[in-house]
Amino acid sequence: MAGATVASATLLDVMTGAAPATAVTDGLTRPAERAASGQSVVVLGAGPAGLTAALKFAEAGYKVTVLEATRRVGGRTLTARPNDQVTEVWDDGSLRTQTCNFDKGLYLNLGAGRIPYHHQRVLNLCRRLKVPLEPYIHTTTANLFQSDKGWQGATRPNRRIANDTRGYVAQLLTQALQKGLLDDGLTPAQRDQFVKLLVPFGKLDKDSKLYVGSTRSGLAKPISVHQMEEAIDPLLLKDLLASEFWDQGFYQDSDWHWHTTSFQPVGGMDTIWRYAAAALPSGAISYSSPVSSIQLDGNGVIVTWSTNGGAAQTRRFDYCLSNIPVSVLRDQVTLSGNFSPDFKNAVKRTPFAPACKVGWQANRRFWESDKYQIYGGISRIDHEISQIWYPSNDYFSVKGTMTGAYNSYEKATTLGDRPHDERLSVARAAGIKLHDEMASNAVIPNQLGMSIAWHKVQYQLGAWADWAPSKPELKPLYETLLYPQGQDNFFVIGDQVSALPGWQEGALMSAEWAFESINSQKRAPRMPVKELPNARELTTGESGPSTPGR
Amino acid sequence: MAGATVASATLLDVMTGAAPATAVTDGLTRPAERAASGQSVVVLGAGPAGLTAALKFAEAGYKVTVLEATRRVGGRTLTARPNDQVTEVWDDGSLRTQTCNFDKGLYLNLGAGRIPYHHQRVLNLCRRLKVPLEPYIHTTTANLFQSDKGWQGATRPNRRIANDTRGYVAQLLTQALQKGLLDDGLTPAQRDQFVKLLVPFGKLDKDSKLYVGSTRSGLAKPISVHQMEEAIDPLLLKDLLASEFWDQGFYQDSDWHWHTTSFQPVGGMDTIWRYAAAALPSGAISYSSPVSSIQLDGNGVIVTWSTNGGAAQTRRFDYCLSNIPVSVLRDQVTLSGNFSPDFKNAVKRTPFAPACKVGWQANRRFWESDKYQIYGGISRIDHEISQIWYPSNDYFSVKGTMTGAYNSYEKATTLGDRPHDERLSVARAAGIKLHDEMASNAVIPNQLGMSIAWHKVQYQLGAWADWAPSKPELKPLYETLLYPQGQDNFFVIGDQVSALPGWQEGALMSAEWAFESINSQKRAPRMPVKELPNARELTTGESGPSTPGR
Repeated sequence: MAGATVASATLLDVMTGAAPATAVTDGLTRPAERAASGQSVVVLGAGPAGLTAALKFAEAGYKVTVLEATRRVGGRTLTARPNDQVTEVWDDGSLRTQTCNFDKGLYLNLGAGRIPYHHQRVLNLCRRLKVPLEPYIHTTTANLFQSDKGWQGATRPNRRIANDTRGYVAQLLTQALQKGLLDDGLTPAQRDQFVKLLVPFGKLDKDSKLYVGSTRSGLAKPISVHQMEEAIDPLLLKDLLASEFWDQGFYQDSDWHWHTTSFQPVGGMDTIWRYAAAALPSGAISYSSPVSSIQLDGNGVIVTWSTNGGAAQTRRFDYCLSNIPVSVLRDQVTLSGNFSPDFKNAVKRTPFAPACKVGWQANRRFWESDKYQIYGGISRIDHEISQIWYPSNDYFSVKGTMTGAYNSYEKATTLGDRPHDERLSVARAAGIKLHDEMASNAVIPNQLGMSIAWHKVQYQLGAWADWAPSKPELKPLYETLLYPQGQDNFFVIGDQVSALPGWQEGALMSAEWAFESINSQKRAPRMPVKELPNARELTTGESGPSTPGR
Repeated sequence: MAGATVASATLLDVMTGAAPATAVTDGLTRPAERAASGQSVVVLGAGPAGLTAALKFAEAGYKVTVLEATRRVGGRTLTARPNDQVTEVWDDGSLRTQTCNFDKGLYLNLGAGRIPYHHQRVLNLCRRLKVPLEPYIHTTTANLFQSDKGWQGATRPNRRIANDTRGYVAQLLTQALQKGLLDDGLTPAQRDQFVKLLVPFGKLDKDSKLYVGSTRSGLAKPISVHQMEEAIDPLLLKDLLASEFWDQGFYQDSDWHWHTTSFQPVGGMDTIWRYAAAALPSGAISYSSPVSSIQLDGNGVIVTWSTNGGAAQTRRFDYCLSNIPVSVLRDQVTLSGNFSPDFKNAVKRTPFAPACKVGWQANRRFWESDKYQIYGGISRIDHEISQIWYPSNDYFSVKGTMTGAYNSYEKATTLGDRPHDERLSVARAAGIKLHDEMASNAVIPNQLGMSIAWHKVQYQLGAWADWAPSKPELKPLYETLLYPQGQDNFFVIGDQVSALPGWQEGALMSAEWAFESINSQKRAPRMPVKELPNARELTTGESGPSTPGR
C-alpha cells in the first residue's frame, strides 16, 4: 500500500506542477502517514466542499466516487456561459429552465462572486491548481447610490456620500473635543492629537477645522491647463441623513469579508472547480446522478442513485460525505438505518436563506463611458434589487455582463416569487434609476437576461444555511450536523456546516474537518460550539440582532 | 493636401484598429477640418506630452520630428527591465549609472505608477492604442503601518488602525449628539438619524452604541467549523493617537487621485509610450539626440542637437513643442532670439520637487504568504523611506518586484543625497521593521536593488514642477510658461505646465492645449489662471499650507 499512498499523495503535484507541501493551510495538505488501504469514499455533490474532500481523499489513497446530481461541478459556484441552463423548481412542482444566450466569451457568476484575501484555503487551492486569478473590485468611488428618499431620487456617487459624511463627522467631533464636553478619558494633549487626526480623516480645513468640501468628493468642473481642481460643493448633511444611504450596505467594503484585496478566477468562478475536477482521477465524477437514498447499517454507507434518469444503482461505501444541501437532503433523499433522531431533526429544521441574482449581457459597457467612469464595484439602490455589480474583468472592451440585482432574505423572497420575465422587468425598471441606458432593449436585451432564485434552484433549494446567534434553538442542530453519523462514517459537509455560510472558504473548512476526522481515525470529541455563525451578517455585512463585539 | 490629411487623420485607426472617433476626450480627437499643409513640427522629448502631441500633429497632417535625449521613450514614465540603465548627474558633475539586473520578465515602475479612473485622457489613449490594463491596488487592509512612536515599534495592519479609529470616532460623536451639546443645526429627529448612520459607519454595538471592537479589524483567532469569528481586541485610542499614523499618508486612498479603481498597463507603465511611439510614422523619433539650443528668429524655430554624440545638426521647423523639463531647459539648452524676458525668467525660476524610489527584485513574494496576506497596496512607515509598494501584478507567482521606498520633498532630498549602496542599506533597514524577511540578501539581493533620485536623473532634474497656491510669486511664471513664445510657434508642454504636476494626465492636457492652439491658428487670449496647482497635495495627498475647499 505504501506505493499507492505515495502515488496518490503526489497526484496534485503531477496534475498541477504544484509547489512543495510545506506549511500552507491549503485544504490539501498532505495527510499524516497512513495507508488508506483502498477504502472507499463516496462524495455526494460536486460542490466546493465535495470536490475539495474528493481531492484530499484521492490524494490520501482512498477510492473516491463523486455523485453529482447535475451536469456540472461547482454547486452554488455557478458561472453562466452561452448555452448553460438553470432550472428552478416552483411551488407548484413545475420545473422552469432558462438557457443562457450570452455571446461567446461572456460569462456571469450567478453564485459565489469573490474571494477575500484572507480566505486562504481557497486561495491556496487556486495556487496549487494554478487557477488564474485577477482582482475583484468591490467598490469604486464612482459607484452610484440611489434612493427616492434623497436628492429627489437622483443618483449620487459613492465618493460624495462617503467623503462628505466623513467631513461632517470629523468637523462635529472636532467641535465636541474642543469644547471638552465628552466623557472621553483623554488628556488635553490627546484631544489635540485627536483633532490633528480628524483633519486628514475628514479633510477638514486646516485652520478653521470646518468641513468646507473636498476634492475627495470629486471636482466642480473639468480641469485643464487653465482650470485647476475645484472641489464640488459638498452634499448637505440633512440630505445625507434623509437619504438613509447607510441602510443599503454602503459600508460593506469596511466589513471583513469585503476588504480589498479580493480576487476572482479569470473566466468565471467555477474555473476553480473545473480545475479541481480535472485533478481527480479520470471517471471519479458521475454526473446527472441524483441520490435517492442513504442507508447506514453499521457496515458502511449504502447509497442509491440513478444516472441520467436510468435504473437505480445501489452501492456500499466505507465512508460517505454528503455535500448535498440539507434543504435538499430533507426533501429528496430517504435517510434510513442508523441516523440518529437528532440528526433527522437537524436535517428537517435547519433554515436556509433565499437569495436572488439577475444578470444581463450589455452590448455596450456604458458604465465605463466618460459619463460614469465606473470600472467594477457595486452601485446600491433602495429597491428590491439592492445592488448592481459591474464586471471586474475585460475592462475597456465593447460588451460585458453586469449583475442587475443581488439580494437576499426578504427582498429575495419577493423577487424570487416573480416569474423570470417579471424579474427582468423589475430589475430593468430599477436599473434605469441608476443608468438611463438600461431602458434600451438594444443595450441590455431581455433575451440576454438571466435570473436565479437560489431557494428555487433544483438540487439547491437555498442560498446558505441561515444560522443566527440570536436563535439559540438552532445551536443543537448545528452541533448535530457537525459530527458524523453511524460508525462515524457519514458526514455532512459544505459551507452549511461551517463558520462561513455562503462562502467557499466555509465549504473548504468543512471538507478539511471531515477529511481529518476520517483519516486520523480518531473519534472527534463532541464539543459544543460557543456561538453560531451569523449568516446574515456574514453574507450581507448587515448586523442582525445585537451581537456585541462584531 | 486633402488626401494627406485624410491619410494622417486615420493613422491611429490604421495602427491600432481603434474605435470610432465620436465624442471621447481622448487627447487624440480629430482636429477640425484644416489642411496642415505639411507644416513641420519638432517635439523635444519623447515623454507623455511629447508623444501625445506628436501623435496629434501627425494625425493632423503635420510633418513631425521627435528629438529624444535618451535611448528610450516615456520620460518619467520609466519602467526598469533587465539591462535597462538609469543615469544620475551628481553635484560634482559625475555621472553615475545603474544597470537593472532583474530576472527576465520582471519589471518595476520607477516613475509613474498608477492611472486613476478619472484620468480619462490617459485611459482613452490606452483604449485607442489597445494598451492592456489591469487594476492597480492602492490599499489593502492587510497593508502595514510602523512607527517607533506606537506599539513599541511593532507593525499594525491597516484594517486595525482604520476601523478601530472609525469605531472610536463614531462612538464619541454619538455621545456628543445624544448629549445635544453640539452646534450642529440638527433637529432631534436628524440627530437620531445621524446616530443610526454612525452605527454602521463605525460598527458600533447596536444597543450600547459603544465601540467594543469589530471583525472589520480582523479576527482574534483562526476560524474553523468549531470556532466562529471573534473580533480581535481593538487597539487603544491612546495608542492610536500616540502613533501619529495619520501623518504618514494613511488616508491617501480617500484623496481624489488615489481612489479605486486605479489601473496600470500590463508589463510596465511605459508600455503606453512604447505603443504610442509605434503608432508614429516610422523614423519620426530620433533617439540619443539631446538638444543644445533653440532659437526663435521670427520665421520658425531653429533647433540644434546632436545624435549619439556626433556633430551638431541645426534645422528650422515651423513649430516647436518643448517637452524638456524646464529644470533641464535652463541648465542645458541655450535659448536665443525672440524669447521674452518673462519667459527666460520663468524658465530660470520654476521650482522642481525631488522624489526618490528604491526597488527590489524579491526572490520570494514573502508578503503574499499566509503570514502577511498582502496582495498589492502600500505599507507606510514613519521613516525616510515613507512607503513600500507591493506589486499589483503576477500575484501568486514566485518572484516579484517591490518598491522599497517612495518619498518626495524633504525625505527625498535626504535619501537622494545618499549613494546608491547607502540608499539600499537604508531602505533595507527600514523594510526590516515591516518585514523581517527583508534582512535576507537571498530574498532581496543588493545586486537586484535599484534606486532613483529623480532630481538627479540626467535630462530630468526633478520629479515635478513644484507649483504651490501658497506662493503667489510663482503664478506669473506658470502663466508665462503656459503661452507660446515667438510667433506663437514655441510651446512648453508637459505636466510641468498643467493642472496636474506629476501625473501623466497633466502631460496629456498640456499636449492637447498646445495642439489645439496651433492647429486652430487662433491666438489664445492671455488669461490669468485663478490659482496654481498644489503640487505637493496632488502628488502626496498631504495638504500644504492652508487651501480651503480642497
